[in-house]
Amino acid sequence: MDLSRAAAVAADATDPLAGFRARFTGTDDEGPDRLLYLDGNSLGRLPVDTPAAVARVVEQEWGRGLVGSWAGWVEQSRRIGDVLAAGVLGARPGEMLISDTTSVDLYKLLVAAVDARPGRDVLVCCADDFPTDRYVVAGVAEQRGLTVRQVAAHVDEGLDPAVLARALDERVAVLVLSQVAYRSGAVVDMAAVTRLAREHGALVVWDLSHGAGAVPADLTAVGADLAVGCTYKHLNGGPGAPAFLYVRQELQDQLRQPIWGWFGARDQFAMGAAYHPAEGVDRFAVGTPPVLAMAAVEVGARLTAEAGIDAIAAKGRALTNLVVALADAWLAGHGVAVASPRDAARRGAHVSLAHPAAWQLTQALIERGVVPDFRTPDRLRLGPAPLYTRFVDVWDAMDRLRTVLADRSYEAYPTGRSRVT
Amino acid sequence: MDLSRAAAVAADATDPLAGFRARFTGTDDEGPDRLLYLDGNSLGRLPVDTPAAVARVVEQEWGRGLVGSWAGWVEQSRRIGDVLAAGVLGARPGEMLISDTTSVDLYKLLVAAVDARPGRDVLVCCADDFPTDRYVVAGVAEQRGLTVRQVAAHVDEGLDPAVLARALDERVAVLVLSQVAYRSGAVVDMAAVTRLAREHGALVVWDLSHGAGAVPADLTAVGADLAVGCTYKHLNGGPGAPAFLYVRQELQDQLRQPIWGWFGARDQFAMGAAYHPAEGVDRFAVGTPPVLAMAAVEVGARLTAEAGIDAIAAKGRALTNLVVALADAWLAGHGVAVASPRDAARRGAHVSLAHPAAWQLTQALIERGVVPDFRTPDRLRLGPAPLYTRFVDVWDAMDRLRTVLADRSYEAYPTGRSRVT
Repeated sequence: MDLSRAAAVAADATDPLAGFRARFTGTDDEGPDRLLYLDGNSLGRLPVDTPAAVARVVEQEWGRGLVGSWAGWVEQSRRIGDVLAAGVLGARPGEMLISDTTSVDLYKLLVAAVDARPGRDVLVCCADDFPTDRYVVAGVAEQRGLTVRQVAAHVDEGLDPAVLARALDERVAVLVLSQVAYRSGAVVDMAAVTRLAREHGALVVWDLSHGAGAVPADLTAVGADLAVGCTYKHLNGGPGAPAFLYVRQELQDQLRQPIWGWFGARDQFAMGAAYHPAEGVDRFAVGTPPVLAMAAVEVGARLTAEAGIDAIAAKGRALTNLVVALADAWLAGHGVAVASPRDAARRGAHVSLAHPAAWQLTQALIERGVVPDFRTPDRLRLGPAPLYTRFVDVWDAMDRLRTVLADRSYEAYPTGRSRVT
Repeated sequence: MDLSRAAAVAADATDPLAGFRARFTGTDDEGPDRLLYLDGNSLGRLPVDTPAAVARVVEQEWGRGLVGSWAGWVEQSRRIGDVLAAGVLGARPGEMLISDTTSVDLYKLLVAAVDARPGRDVLVCCADDFPTDRYVVAGVAEQRGLTVRQVAAHVDEGLDPAVLARALDERVAVLVLSQVAYRSGAVVDMAAVTRLAREHGALVVWDLSHGAGAVPADLTAVGADLAVGCTYKHLNGGPGAPAFLYVRQELQDQLRQPIWGWFGARDQFAMGAAYHPAEGVDRFAVGTPPVLAMAAVEVGARLTAEAGIDAIAAKGRALTNLVVALADAWLAGHGVAVASPRDAARRGAHVSLAHPAAWQLTQALIERGVVPDFRTPDRLRLGPAPLYTRFVDVWDAMDRLRTVLADRSYEAYPTGRSRVT
């Protein structure tokens, strides 16, 4: 692999997604000191079309249309869900909704799944999964008197289905697992895990947060039953944007979620005496949907679908291959270890680098115009979002990191821990 | 009472809140055919300052600040909560959060309250309350094996504490009740109900949705323990805007809500193995907060606080008094009955009128530039939001209604039922 800057520039010149970079704000600075944003896996950049889309909903639909605009707004959750289903996540129409937050959606689907497996008393999750996944599982287990089995994942290589298999038996009701590990970026074999769970009569609720918009999920192809995920990372839906949920069509009418809000009720505006869940995926809705926030989600979802998830994933593999190769070539001698799968097919669109001073390095990089993020205890996470990150951006960011390590300037920064991401 | 149009114009001339009308978009048309929007109790109008506030968060904070903006965003839920607490709802700092939807917040606080009353097996709600209140109660009851006692309210006059008292005993764990009834606008005596519940050892979760921003709640003064409510009605926070929740300070550390998301965890970015709820009101948060949507909520909350809830409520009483007086004078002969309390002190800022053809009247009015809303089975709801509705607007709207009734033109409209509001 040619690790010269010229090779990176050449890779950009033949990148089929190169044109998408200009569809995001803040990407027009070409100077040597420009911001190198490698944190799209935490908060995706602002699409150029989003301000006008949000302003239209605010000023025209709300400001002028007032309640009359509800005729369109009631379709919004399903409409964007269908865009994600067809263009990003490989699901069928009517299987997805935009609704609530990832945590709330996970709770809803997990409780629904537990109720669908009466007599079983074990939940399985992964010890290395994102806190919300583990915490929601713990909360539901405490409420329902269930036992949690936490399966260990390899910290760099992710969850091995063979290890997971040892935690499964006829007591297991539901598994909650991430498609892409939030620290290492390791991708789980969803088809293998789904098969395994089904052999044991258990359901899987997938958290697609760290992969949605970066790698395919192929929900129908892998036979997935239930999934939730985040729209503010690789789907570029904006800070705190509402989440998506997916329920396989054949399961929808068998499942009931626990929060019986009016938007999940059949014939909602009849406002009848008793709650009857709506038909289909609408029963997984709860309260009045977040109209303004969804305007931003729709732009991000359509942009991702337009680029094509396979093209995005291919570029993600190439970009993260470059991170890994440069880390090996330049940083290994400074005590940096690649803490992500080396097989690109097993990675999402981010790479973790382990170094004892990861938090100091994070601060030093930010001051030098590189935005990575930090994950406890010693991980520097680099997420070169394929839609707007160039190969030369990766090269320059790694070069700045190399400099900070070589001149030991990172040692001047505090050794504290927490940072908001 | 002088029911002339000139008297309405004179009332506007001395209205201390008159200046707030220009702070909302769409209020500059003074023509005889102008839109008369009497549905601010369903979706409040757009404040003039909101588009710029939302655009600033989108373009500057997200677009330019990217993840660095989280330093400010993490304070947003609490900051707006404190504005509502101090300026609108009579609570103390650190007792309120903006979070999720009303339905989800109600579920969280209801389950927390049930868990705080072990051994009790009855939930109480009001048969005439908004569907989400009754449905969430039914869902929690089903999950927990509890019994629901639905108390009847007088359809026009609302819930009588003496009637409620008969449903209370030592089996009751939690009451879920609305401050303002969504159809009639009747206001419950929150202090009396809170005392009554406490005498029986029960907790009340108040739904303030239909009153917040229109009438005071005085949460501290009435001794309220728990409350939730909507920001998109009289608080003018935008369609589907996130809700607020309130937990009395002394109770916060005794209660745990059931959805264990990472934003409700102590030392959130430590991402530790086990969920420990945050100190204080933060433990009632769940997922990543809706940053864009909250920008709009903040404008509405500050505008309401600036006007002052007592002044707003006083004008609301005067406006609805005019609706009642004109209905009596002009419409009673056409079969229209006032279906709200006649005592203004017992009303929120809307009035319901009963007529067998209410749905046809709704459609006829909309086509004539009056936006009311319809509620099953036979209610026309008129909500003259005090911040932007003038007395002359009420007069003109009632005049158009009188005309539609007198010439029977409403009879040309379909008799169907549902309408999105």
